[in-house]
Amino acid sequence: MQTLDRNTSLIDALKARRLKLATLVDFPVLLWSGQSSPRNFRANTFPFRASSHFLYFAGLPLENAVIRLEGGRLTLFIDEASPASALWHGETPKRDDIAAAIGATEAYPLSELKPEKNERGEEWLVTPSTWTNGAATIGVQDGKTHANQYIMCQRNVFRDAGRIEGIDLELARAIVSLRMIHDEFALTELRKAAMVSIAAHKAGMAATRCASVEAEIRAAMERVIIANGMTCAYSSIVTVHGEVLHNDQYHHAIGSGDLLLADVGAETASGWASDITRTWAVSGKFSSTQRSLYDVVLAAHDACIAAIRPGVEYRDLHLLAARTIAAGLVDLGILRGQVEDLVDRDVHALFFPHGVGHILGLDVHDMEDLGDLAGYETGRTRSDRFGLNYLRLDRPLQAGMVVTIEPGFYQVPAILQDPERRAKYHDIVDWDRLAQFADVRGIRIEDDVLVTETGAEVLTAALPTEIEAIEQLVQS
Amino acid sequence: MQTLDRNTSLIDALKARRLKLATLVDFPVLLWSGQSSPRNFRANTFPFRASSHFLYFAGLPLENAVIRLEGGRLTLFIDEASPASALWHGETPKRDDIAAAIGATEAYPLSELKPEKNERGEEWLVTPSTWTNGAATIGVQDGKTHANQYIMCQRNVFRDAGRIEGIDLELARAIVSLRMIHDEFALTELRKAAMVSIAAHKAGMAATRCASVEAEIRAAMERVIIANGMTCAYSSIVTVHGEVLHNDQYHHAIGSGDLLLADVGAETASGWASDITRTWAVSGKFSSTQRSLYDVVLAAHDACIAAIRPGVEYRDLHLLAARTIAAGLVDLGILRGQVEDLVDRDVHALFFPHGVGHILGLDVHDMEDLGDLAGYETGRTRSDRFGLNYLRLDRPLQAGMVVTIEPGFYQVPAILQDPERRAKYHDIVDWDRLAQFADVRGIRIEDDVLVTETGAEVLTAALPTEIEAIEQLVQS
Ligand SMILES: [Mn+2]
Ligand SMILES: [Mn+2]
Repeated sequence: MQTLDRNTSLIDALKARRLKLATLVDFPVLLWSGQSSPRNFRANTFPFRASSHFLYFAGLPLENAVIRLEGGRLTLFIDEASPASALWHGETPKRDDIAAAIGATEAYPLSELKPEKNERGEEWLVTPSTWTNGAATIGVQDGKTHANQYIMCQRNVFRDAGRIEGIDLELARAIVSLRMIHDEFALTELRKAAMVSIAAHKAGMAATRCASVEAEIRAAMERVIIANGMTCAYSSIVTVHGEVLHNDQYHHAIGSGDLLLADVGAETASGWASDITRTWAVSGKFSSTQRSLYDVVLAAHDACIAAIRPGVEYRDLHLLAARTIAAGLVDLGILRGQVEDLVDRDVHALFFPHGVGHILGLDVHDMEDLGDLAGYETGRTRSDRFGLNYLRLDRPLQAGMVVTIEPGFYQVPAILQDPERRAKYHDIVDWDRLAQFADVRGIRIEDDVLVTETGAEVLTAALPTEIEAIEQLVQS
Repeated sequence: MQTLDRNTSLIDALKARRLKLATLVDFPVLLWSGQSSPRNFRANTFPFRASSHFLYFAGLPLENAVIRLEGGRLTLFIDEASPASALWHGETPKRDDIAAAIGATEAYPLSELKPEKNERGEEWLVTPSTWTNGAATIGVQDGKTHANQYIMCQRNVFRDAGRIEGIDLELARAIVSLRMIHDEFALTELRKAAMVSIAAHKAGMAATRCASVEAEIRAAMERVIIANGMTCAYSSIVTVHGEVLHNDQYHHAIGSGDLLLADVGAETASGWASDITRTWAVSGKFSSTQRSLYDVVLAAHDACIAAIRPGVEYRDLHLLAARTIAAGLVDLGILRGQVEDLVDRDVHALFFPHGVGHILGLDVHDMEDLGDLAGYETGRTRSDRFGLNYLRLDRPLQAGMVVTIEPGFYQVPAILQDPERRAKYHDIVDWDRLAQFADVRGIRIEDDVLVTETGAEVLTAALPTEIEAIEQLVQS
């Protein structure tokens, strides 16, 4: 964060967010940005990632900063770099310039937030400053700043979603309701992230035929993200073992008969994420078995997107994907039975064991730091059913939400080789027929979708999903 | 960390390290690997980086593991993945298989390390386990594990180098003496990191003429590192503003008359680092002013490397670089005076304000988590002199050490525009002459050098330093 452009659309967007917050809570709010985490020693840190709640109201990834929001007013607390730091880090903006760039009405050094020490010099169980007294906050991820939050607020500030209480819980609910519905400024950023992620996937496809290990394809994709001044929104998954859902290995050799699954998304400099998965044939040509199962997943993907509109329950989209996949597997002779009955018995989850998606925003699983507070409508909790437990989102859709739609088909040994499950479903799964699809380990197709007043807009639509178009991109 | 190959040379190397440690300390040692740090929410983490001290004795980047070393024996403490995790992370190795891969004689779950709780269920001020009682350790970087260390050891475990004491300090000194002199296994890893870093720099040079912003060159370089299954050992510096020493910005447009400074190094999967800087002309052709100053820096670089042999004081290499740069600037008419006198008055530091290098190993600034314990010979401390204060290494060289040699020339506004310094050096610097070199903002040339019995071996020698060869690589 070195250069500051005066960006009135940012200032206006931030102001609108603050004014909306002021209609929802009647107490002051303090949000910390956090500090970078050390990697192997203190001066060698991971790239700084500001807290998403801070970013939403401050717009810029300011390290070790605090904002105070009250009645639509924004007060910034940040220390200026020491003159000596100019040698190592160049000239950095002055406090007042940063304040002006984000529309803050006042700006102070961090020491303003400190409580008075007591007569014994202790800084605990003492009087908080007038800035922090009675203010609500949300616990940040890095431990150093989190410890600071305790001292500045002179009380517990919980990060465990289950323990957040009082005005902090009220604040969390208010922020959830704001961040859930994206404004134009957010959508512009989300579209930028989507465009770069699309280019990354195209580069990955084009690099596949010359690659011999997964890491080379990952590298071609992340190159695009880095070249565009963005970062990865999450650890990329680029693997011929798509059946390992959170695969963070990239050393496998890629075989000419393999499918490659890539779940890679960019994040803009101000933190807005994209999340795209495509699956392609390493050779550039899907086999007939790969083609059949891919089209089952694609049918589920397309059916969900076609069903999106305000008022629709996201859980029903998940069940629609489950039914579409079950029906496709019946058609292919892998499953036997009635579709409704198969889904009721969680048979789809043998092959599609995760939820159909999640909300997307500043976090790839947006607001997951608040547990299920954002994902689940108040009063709802996770189902115990194997086929629903991993659903991250259970709310009616509203215009302005962005969700992912990401059905998949996987042959997970830990599921399909489980003797208990094999016994339970022995009359339903045709294991011999399934064995003919051994060249499919994992397929997922994931897009980012904006719920509009009348339906849906796929933010990632410029990246094709149809087999023919993908084959062309790989062969290009 | 998914696959385990039985690697007898790793097992032998680790055993030799343990046996050496056993000759240096007569108490048991516990080393924690640490846990991954959250990025914006708990499930979205930065890539896991194990503690370097752990890696040195355990060889593998095992997350949330502890090793105990006593009398040459290795005991491993690690929990096995839950069966449910196979769905998300695939099959992971069993505890006993990991133990076998690193030559551990026994392996237990982490709970073995827990102290007995007292009758009120408290876990503080209670009896430590027999595994941890009386054992020395070193504080890790991540806060969660650091808090665990307190509880397991039932005492303070300091991370601030200045506060480490007792057997922990004895341990730190013993580890410094071991890690300072690299064994064959370490050198093999350091050479691998060097080779990939060299390829990254060549890719960066080749990508420059088609690039319009710094980020594109950075991307071309990091692509090579990622494609080879390695990570960046530190935040890359890739900039036309080389005068900002720790520049972490990549958005500047690159002009055809600019010099580009790239300080980029790879780290192997087991943590061994490389650290290379090259400076090249964006157009592929150095201007005559750029050429003159580049050759001054190169002369300092070559003189230092030629002077390396066991027994030489690293501080003397720094002063040799300072004298060579001062002499070059006198020749160019930028400085006036006698070289010895200029260096005594810190005039070189106007243009070369940092140290000539540091030790290199598992950390890019090796063992910097221990403050100056590794960098400074016992009894020595940092100088107050502007021209020496930033020196990270002040010890006599020994065969088996790896150091960087990285002289530079920079026009740092914060230094050269400082009225106090301009007044102090007004008769020494020819400011008009200096103004003719305005197309040089920053030049650094950095190589990784192994001290041998008879002199030096440049691990990064396959990447040229001479202008003609670099021009060819940029134009290729
Ligand atoms: Mn997703
Ligand atoms: Mn260096």
